[in-house]
Order: sequence, then C-alpha cells, then structure tokens
Amino acid sequence: MSEYPILSTIKFSHDVKRVDERQMDALCSEIRDKLVEVVSVNGGHLSPNLGVVELTVAMHRVFDFPKDSVVWDVGHQSYTHKLLTGRFDSFDTLRQKDGVSGFPKKEESPYDDFNTGHSSTSISAAFGIANAKAMRGENSHTIAVIGDGSLTGGLAFEAMNNAGRFNKNFIVVLNDNKMSISKNVGAIPRYLTTVRIQPWYIRVKKVTERGLSHIPLLGRLMKGLLRRSKSKIKNIVYKNTLFDCFGFTYLGPIDGHNVEELENAFLAAKKVNSPVLLHVVTKKGKGYRPAEDKPGEFHGIGQFDIDSGEPMSSHKGFSAEFGKALCTFADKDDKICAITAAMATGTGLSDFAKTHKNRFFDVGIAEEHAVTFGCGLASKGYRPVFAVYSTFLQRAYDQLIHDAALGDNHLVLAIDRAGIVGSDGETHQGVFDVSMLNTIPGAVIYSPCYFEGMRKSLHTALYLQKGLAAVRYPRGGELYRPKDFGEESIDYNIYGNPNAHYLIVTYGRLFSYACKARTILAEQGLDICILKLCKIKPVSREAVFFASRFREIWFFEEGVKNGGIARNFSDLVGFRGFKGRYHIKAIGDEFVKQMSVDEALAMLKLDSDGMAEVITRDLQDEETTGYFNT
Amino acid sequence: MSEYPILSTIKFSHDVKRVDERQMDALCSEIRDKLVEVVSVNGGHLSPNLGVVELTVAMHRVFDFPKDSVVWDVGHQSYTHKLLTGRFDSFDTLRQKDGVSGFPKKEESPYDDFNTGHSSTSISAAFGIANAKAMRGENSHTIAVIGDGSLTGGLAFEAMNNAGRFNKNFIVVLNDNKMSISKNVGAIPRYLTTVRIQPWYIRVKKVTERGLSHIPLLGRLMKGLLRRSKSKIKNIVYKNTLFDCFGFTYLGPIDGHNVEELENAFLAAKKVNSPVLLHVVTKKGKGYRPAEDKPGEFHGIGQFDIDSGEPMSSHKGFSAEFGKALCTFADKDDKICAITAAMATGTGLSDFAKTHKNRFFDVGIAEEHAVTFGCGLASKGYRPVFAVYSTFLQRAYDQLIHDAALGDNHLVLAIDRAGIVGSDGETHQGVFDVSMLNTIPGAVIYSPCYFEGMRKSLHTALYLQKGLAAVRYPRGGELYRPKDFGEESIDYNIYGNPNAHYLIVTYGRLFSYACKARTILAEQGLDICILKLCKIKPVSREAVFFASRFREIWFFEEGVKNGGIARNFSDLVGFRGFKGRYHIKAIGDEFVKQMSVDEALAMLKLDSDGMAEVITRDLQDEETTGYFNT
Repeated sequence: MSEYPILSTIKFSHDVKRVDERQMDALCSEIRDKLVEVVSVNGGHLSPNLGVVELTVAMHRVFDFPKDSVVWDVGHQSYTHKLLTGRFDSFDTLRQKDGVSGFPKKEESPYDDFNTGHSSTSISAAFGIANAKAMRGENSHTIAVIGDGSLTGGLAFEAMNNAGRFNKNFIVVLNDNKMSISKNVGAIPRYLTTVRIQPWYIRVKKVTERGLSHIPLLGRLMKGLLRRSKSKIKNIVYKNTLFDCFGFTYLGPIDGHNVEELENAFLAAKKVNSPVLLHVVTKKGKGYRPAEDKPGEFHGIGQFDIDSGEPMSSHKGFSAEFGKALCTFADKDDKICAITAAMATGTGLSDFAKTHKNRFFDVGIAEEHAVTFGCGLASKGYRPVFAVYSTFLQRAYDQLIHDAALGDNHLVLAIDRAGIVGSDGETHQGVFDVSMLNTIPGAVIYSPCYFEGMRKSLHTALYLQKGLAAVRYPRGGELYRPKDFGEESIDYNIYGNPNAHYLIVTYGRLFSYACKARTILAEQGLDICILKLCKIKPVSREAVFFASRFREIWFFEEGVKNGGIARNFSDLVGFRGFKGRYHIKAIGDEFVKQMSVDEALAMLKLDSDGMAEVITRDLQDEETTGYFNT
Repeated sequence: MSEYPILSTIKFSHDVKRVDERQMDALCSEIRDKLVEVVSVNGGHLSPNLGVVELTVAMHRVFDFPKDSVVWDVGHQSYTHKLLTGRFDSFDTLRQKDGVSGFPKKEESPYDDFNTGHSSTSISAAFGIANAKAMRGENSHTIAVIGDGSLTGGLAFEAMNNAGRFNKNFIVVLNDNKMSISKNVGAIPRYLTTVRIQPWYIRVKKVTERGLSHIPLLGRLMKGLLRRSKSKIKNIVYKNTLFDCFGFTYLGPIDGHNVEELENAFLAAKKVNSPVLLHVVTKKGKGYRPAEDKPGEFHGIGQFDIDSGEPMSSHKGFSAEFGKALCTFADKDDKICAITAAMATGTGLSDFAKTHKNRFFDVGIAEEHAVTFGCGLASKGYRPVFAVYSTFLQRAYDQLIHDAALGDNHLVLAIDRAGIVGSDGETHQGVFDVSMLNTIPGAVIYSPCYFEGMRKSLHTALYLQKGLAAVRYPRGGELYRPKDFGEESIDYNIYGNPNAHYLIVTYGRLFSYACKARTILAEQGLDICILKLCKIKPVSREAVFFASRFREIWFFEEGVKNGGIARNFSDLVGFRGFKGRYHIKAIGDEFVKQMSVDEALAMLKLDSDGMAEVITRDLQDEETTGYFNT
C-alpha cells in the first residue's frame, strides 16, 4: 500500500473535490509528510508550504481550476498546489535539473497560470488576467494569494489601487503568517496585528450596503461567524479596514488551518461582484515541529535530517563574512548603517541587527524604498550599506540611477548571490546585476573572489568612493585558491607567467575555475596567464595595458554578455592597440534554468573543464572565432 | 520700481517670515506673475507650480530652512521654493543650459535637500533624512511634499509602511490637486474624494488619545476648525483614515490657498511626535485662467502667449502618430489594449482612451504594475501595448525581466521620449532604455527614424514577435529625410555607396544627422556609406555581413555606451572577420545636463557637425583611436 493512500489518488484538481470531508485531516497530513520528505532531500522552501496546506486544499475544493485562475505571489508556497495538480509522481525531482520547479511554471502545467519568483507581483498579474476574462465575457474567478510580507512591496499597492474600482469578482487572499522571511517590521504588519486580534467575524460593510441578506450563502456564513463575535453588529458592519479604503471588501480573519471554514469563506468570496480581500491567518511551518519552532531557518533550506530538523551542512560563506566585516567597521564608525529588504538572515545581517540596533533598518520587501531611503541617510552624512540579493536589486534600477548615482549620494551595495544560484532557477539567477550597474554613470563595482577581497573592497567602497559603489559576491563560500596566489588586490591580480602569449581575463569566483583550467592546459603544454579583476567598473588602465600585449585573450564572465564587462574590456584593449584575437565566453541572450551551480557552470562552459575546452577549441579554429584578428 | 516689489526683496527663506501677513496676497500674486512670465518664455511645468504658491509661502514662514528639510516629490512644483531661496534673480534662466533647473538640485542651493525628477521618491528620501537627524540627535523637522498622483506609485507606500512606526516628528504633506498629470484613476484617488468632501476639520484620533488638550496651539487650531464642522466630535475623533492604518496622524483637509490656515496647520503638524499626514487641497493652475481651465495642457508646456494661453508651436510628432497608428490597429483587432502610467496625453493615447475605452487602462503612476498587469492580459491572449517615456520605464526593469521576458508574455512597449529630451535635464534623459533592454534575454528592440518605420515596427512587434518587444522613438517629430532615401525598413537600410571604404552605423533619429554629416564629408571628398538599423536587438546577420567588409566603421549611438548596441555590433562584425578600425561615439559614463536637444547633441558630437568632426579627426589620427587595427 502506498505511503500516501489519499494523496496518490489525486491526479488533478477535481479529484480533491471527491475526497470525503472526514478525510481532510488525513489528506493534509499526507501532504505535509510528502513536503517534509522531499524538501529534506532536495532542499527548498519548507515553512511557507507547510503553512498553506489547508488553504490550498480548500481552494481546490471550491474553485474549478484551471478554468478559474490562481497566481501565487513569490510562488515558493505552491508545492501543495503542484502535488494536487498532476505533479505528485514527479515531485521527487523538485528543484533538480529538468525536474519540477520550486515555483509556478506555466511550461509545467496548465494549472500554473502565471510564473512567479519575485515578490509582490500576484495582484498585478491576477488583475490583468481578471480583466482579460472580463473583456471576453468569461465568468470564471481569478485569485491572487499574497503573504503579509509581500504586501510591504509597493507593487502590491499599485495593483490594489488599480483593482479597487473593478466591478467584477476578483479575490485577493492575504496569507497572513504573522512574519515574512525576516520578522516583519513596518506599519502594515503592525496594522494587521490589530485586525488579526479581533474575534472571528466578517466585516462586510460594502456587501451589507448592497443587500447582503439576499445572498443566502454569505448570509449563513456571516451568521455563523457572528455568533462567535462579541462585537456589536454596528461596529462590525461599519468599521473600515485599510483594504476598504482601497475599494476591497474585507472578509476575515479566517482560520487558515480549518478546511471547512476556508471553504465557506471562499464560497462567500465568490459571490461578491467586486474585489474581495480574504484575510487568512496561517502558521508558518505548521505541522512539522522544527519548522514551527524556527520558521525562519526553514523558510528556504538545504538538505536536513527529518527527525531532528538539523541541516546536513552548515552554510557559512560570503554572507556571514560580510556581516562580520560590517559589524567590525561599524564598531569603529557610528556613521555606518545597514539596510535590508526583509532579508536580514539571508544577507548575514542578524548580528548587526542585534549589536547595532539603532543603525539597522529592515524596510520590508521594498528594494526601491531601501535604495532611496539609503540615499536620504547618505545625503545627511551617514554611510548606508544596502545588503541585497543580486536578483532582487533589479527592482531598484531606477532608484540606483536617479537617487544614488545622479543625486551623488554615497550608497554602498553589498550584492549577495551574485552569479548562478542553482536550484531556485531562472527567476533567481544573479546574472544581471553587473550589466545593470554597468549602465549607470559613475557607479563603481567590485567583484572579489575571496573573503579577503570582499572585506577590502567593502572598506574601499565605504571610505574611498563617492556616489554608488557595489561589492558583489556569490552564494556560498570561497572556492579553490592556488597556494602560490598572493594577496588579493581590490584592483587586479596577475597570476601565472606575464610573458605568456595567452591570457584569461575574469573576475569573481570564476578565478578559482580559471586557475584549475590553467593547470589542465599546462598539462597540454599551453602556458596561460590570468588577469584577475576585482574592480570591474572602471577597470584600471594598468590592467588594460597589461592585457593589450598578449597574442590572444579569453574573457570569462558569469553574467549576461550584453552589457557586460567583457565588452567594456574589448573596447579598452582595442584602444590600447591590442592586435590579437579576443574571445568572450559569457551568458548569451537566454535564461539559465534550475540546476546545481556546478551543472550550470559546466553547461555554460564557465567551469574549469569548460574554459579549457573553449580555449583549446578556439586555438584549433584559426578562422572563424574571435575578433581583433591580426 | 521693480515689477516685483515684495518678491524681489526676498533673498532667502527667512525673509519670507518678515513679510507682513497683510501682504500675503500681494506676494503670492507676484510669485504667480513671475511663474507665468518665465514659463511662457522658457517652457516648463506651470500648473503644478501655480497650485502650490500659498503652500510654499506658508512652509517658509513656519519652518527654518535649510535647518529643516523639505523633499519635493517629482520636484516640478519647486519653482516658488526656488524663487524664495535665492534664485529670483537667475530665474529667467530656468531650464536653459547652465541655468536654474526645473527640479530641485542640491548643487544649486543648500535649500534643495534632495534631487528629484521621477515620481514617488519623496517620502523614502525624507524618511532617510529624518532618520539621519534622529541618529545624531538633531531636532529639526523633515517634510515630504507629495501629490495625489505620486501617491499611486508603490514606492510611496513602501515608504509609508516603513515610516509609520517612527517615534519622532515627520511630516508628509499630501498636495491633493484632485488630478495628477492625466486624470487620476484608481482607488486611492477615489478614496481621497470621500475624505475631501468632508467639512473642514482635523481628525486627530491619535493626538487626542495622547492628550491633545495639553498642546495649546494644536488645541486652538482644532477648536477653530471644529467650529466649522457639522460632524459630531465623536465621529471626527475616532474615524480612521487610510493614513491612520499606516501609522500616520491625519490632519486635514486644509485649504491650500489660505496662507493663514496653512501656517496654523504646519504649526500643529510640528507638534506631533510621530509621523503626520497633512492633507492640503489645492487647485492646479490656480490664479492663471488658461491653466485653471486646462491644467493638463499647462502641466508641462513649451512657450505660450500669456494673454491667450495659446502655445507658440503645436507639437505633433511621434506621440500623436503612435496614438493614431494604435487606434487604427485596434479598430481591426479587439485583442489590442493600451496601458499608460498616468501619461495618456503625453504618450498620445487620448483618442484611444475615448474610442476604445474598455481596452484602455490608466493604472496610475505605477510603471511596475503597468508591466506586470500587461503580462497578465497577455497571458490570456490579449495584445497589450504599454506606452511609456523612456526614463520612466527604468522603474520596471525587474518586471520586464521577470514577468515579460522570463514569463514569455507578449508585451509591446511603445517607448516615447527615447534619447535626449532637452530642458527637463538629467533626470529625464531617455538614454538608458536601450542598454537596459539589451540585457534582457529575448527582448526585441526597434528604433525607427521616421513615422513610417514606427508604424511598421509597431505592427511587427504586435503580430510577428513573441515575448517582450519594444518600439522606441524620440520626443518631437521627424527630422531630415534625404529625397533619395527609399522606404524605411524595420530591419536595416543602406544609404549611399555600398562600395565606399567608410561606414557610419546608427539608428533612430541620428540617421537624419548622419545623412547631413555625409553631405558635409562628401564636400571634403570623403565617400561615406550609412547603415541605418531599425531592429537593433537582434541585429540581422545580413547587416553585420554588409558592415564587415568596410575599411573603417563609426557607430553613433544616442544612448549610454556601456551596454549599448555599438558594442554588440563590434562583437558581431569582429566574428564576421572585420579587420578595419571600429569607432564608437555614444554617451560616456556621465549624465547629460539640461540644455536643448540641439545643444546636447552638439556637445556629445552626435549632431551632423559633430559626426563629421569625429570622422575627420579619426582619419587623421592613424595611431591612437579606434580598434580592430589592421
């Protein structure tokens, strides 16, 4: 008999409706077992998924997917949805190369309406879908499921402002787990607290005004819920919530772990002919004790032991080293501030938050605000450091140009997860930050390979730069460092024979791979020198001058080729009179899918073997590759 | 005697306090005369400035600038502030080369605390400033002045969420002029209407709870205002506004054209030891009849006749032609939708909004939402076109990557004001869009020179492309078109002798300048061929093959060099075996300041004379310039 007697019988959404309601607890329990089993092996987002099991089950019982549509905000909580829509059998491949994605993917299933990965997009996308349906006269429902953390992102408010005047059914489910990735700070989370602590009831001012009593189902639901309320009807009906101000009918709060109550609430929400906000209170990590106790650690996690909840590997690395370095600097300099967009733990700022509390700012999932706010601090003489994942920094492109660079405000970016990130896949690859920052006038970018260079670049960015300065480093820790490699320079290092004919130019962690490629090629009798850049914008004149004397140059870059440093560098050596062949190996005009970092770098020919292969091939093929031909 | 007897005596902010209160009307009247006088000649933002004359005067009477700080959202309403802070004498140079900027510039005056230009940044920046002051124990005040339109931008909400729990004074002035640039749509503007129509009073729930009566000034103000209110005290004191939900104390609404009432309100706001939202109702264009009647047309305007209010030149151009073309397509295709971020008039969509009302979406000043919302429409088979100014598209970089390109949603961008824009200056130059889109996998970019190419590219983007496709065109209309130039291709055109040794490659309106440069050089005996690109990403193989046969190539690009097409193209011809010299003339790692488009292109050597000069110089200087040296 299957370990999952109920779950394994659910092939598609409509099968969920057939499960007897007395089996709901058992079904939810099976789902949780499956989630813990697979994530403990493959890694992934555990606590967000454990929190929405009942919510997801109830949705599939009430709505007719894929005729009805659901957009999962961020999407890391869509595992249960996947288990219920044809992906139970393949779920063991979660987050692996060619396997099930950890995020909704319309390429994967017609039940995934809209791809997500970054925060706060769901209301916008779902409202677009709802309008498309309205224009073609289709009556099905559209739902956005958004967490309280994602609600601190401005995009969600832009969407609510736009959606609030819609005259058809449109459902936003607020999945309120009382904390986002880091502990939520800000006014909205506090506001939700005041709403949440009310007794269970539904406040339905607008519905009531429109003649609620004529809707039998909603009326019945209200009656049941109101029985449990001690508030006076008058207060209930006329109290405004934030969401009412935006034109939404507020329903809630609902117990997010009671399938029956959730089903009733969804049935009620369907009946409202205008935007509805359904406030569902859930517990992050629900049903798996280690995750309930430490929901933050189990938000996104690698392999762990199911019984103890202990992670298989400790992941000290650049994030932790950055956090330590910043604390050390801040101990001596009371102008240093740290800013995070709800990623204090992920970016290594947990200690800073404790030891320098009054200079630590968690602004919510609000990268744009983080940058402009930091510029405000900088404009009055402070030294703010915004620690952020490469992929999320994309959100703040305009603010980086307009408020930091153009306003000449001294903002330091600590860009974590720069480069390929692995199993989170294409939405999370940190392969655009260099090209993005490269377009910004005056921006300075450091991309060290080792902790040493990271600390030194951070110090330089803080004290010797003006305007916008960035230090970027990869996910994980230090890689291979040759024993005869000296001190890491924040400008550039030359490694190998400076009189060789052939030169590799690279930056960041690719230097580790290049060193190994050099060894491979040395065994084939090829003598290769490596120019390791740390300051990649602007590149120093001496480094360019050095490179321009070689016969042939390969620039390896762990980022998109368009707009990247390899192309800047080709200009520079060209003007210096370089007459050899110039080869670029970077990421082409394509997205890099989910797979391990090693698999991705191998595929891109950016690991040691790949680099050696590219160089060998180019040297054999005199005619067609490379430019600056002699 | 001076035309401006009172205004001319005000050298700095503190002089405003010395003006007798009985002279307030006269002062405000002088300011309005000066605004109309200068803007009628230099062009600029008129109606926003006419609306905030009393507001600005009252602020300068109550606050101690520059010890106190003010951040003007967008900043196009800061003219009165400039007139009162040492820039009356130089105000005639408004928006001219080396003259007074049309936006706050800290380089210009210590009274300009923070540079602005784009919408919705003020609360973020001001809150950063307020925190800096709090950290160093400084007691001065910080104010953000934000319009109701800017409040539809998500960044403003991110900032309010962050600021709502601040435990010190922080003042947000909501300058509610009941319409933003286009007529405001969305829930927030409607919500403000419900707040605004209340009788004059101050709703001060929180202040009251904290013991309002002990603050003599605020108590007196309340008393005065409450006398005029017909509501019951109970309702007044306990009613929640949207802003209360965000943790702000709401004060208002206040008559924005009554200096005395404004002064009292500011004095009251200063006394609150937490964030305050002061709701001020103003009339856009106030005091100049033509602007009051047509505030939209006088929002940003060129030269006009003061008596009649008639503009000196009609500005038909690419915006209008785009609007016409889109209407024509939409007449035949009911899947086409138009989206604007509060710029229906500026982007040429006014007619579309009337003739295709149900497929027209003005989403507020919310570029990010516009993109993701459009992707939602596209995901269900519609063909959305987001018409947007180049500079504002920067706001949506992540959404373009994450929701359009990666989600493979077919979104068409109509990018207006692409390239140098002139007097609005560095915050508004459309010189980043190409480099930004160039980094996005799969994005296709068209940059036509003439209306013909714009219409054809738009058609192709709508019907022959998938995913993200952009058509970009400059501010203004068509420029020089040689009589012997044939039909504009959406791919590429060759103009001139294809067997010449020298080639200019360019795109967009620079082709017009290149044609004239070619004539100049022909007079000097130089035979130059021009490769005019329209599809700039990806560039067609044939165009590259054609270019690779030349002896020397100049690529002229009206955009930043880093990440631009000139560098893509150098790769491409290099791989095709190009062995000549390759020169790039584009915008370096710098911002382009305010001056006319002609002046800017001349400075950048991107006009006809500049191109001819660059080519002549490069040909004389065999050694040091260009790369791909033979």
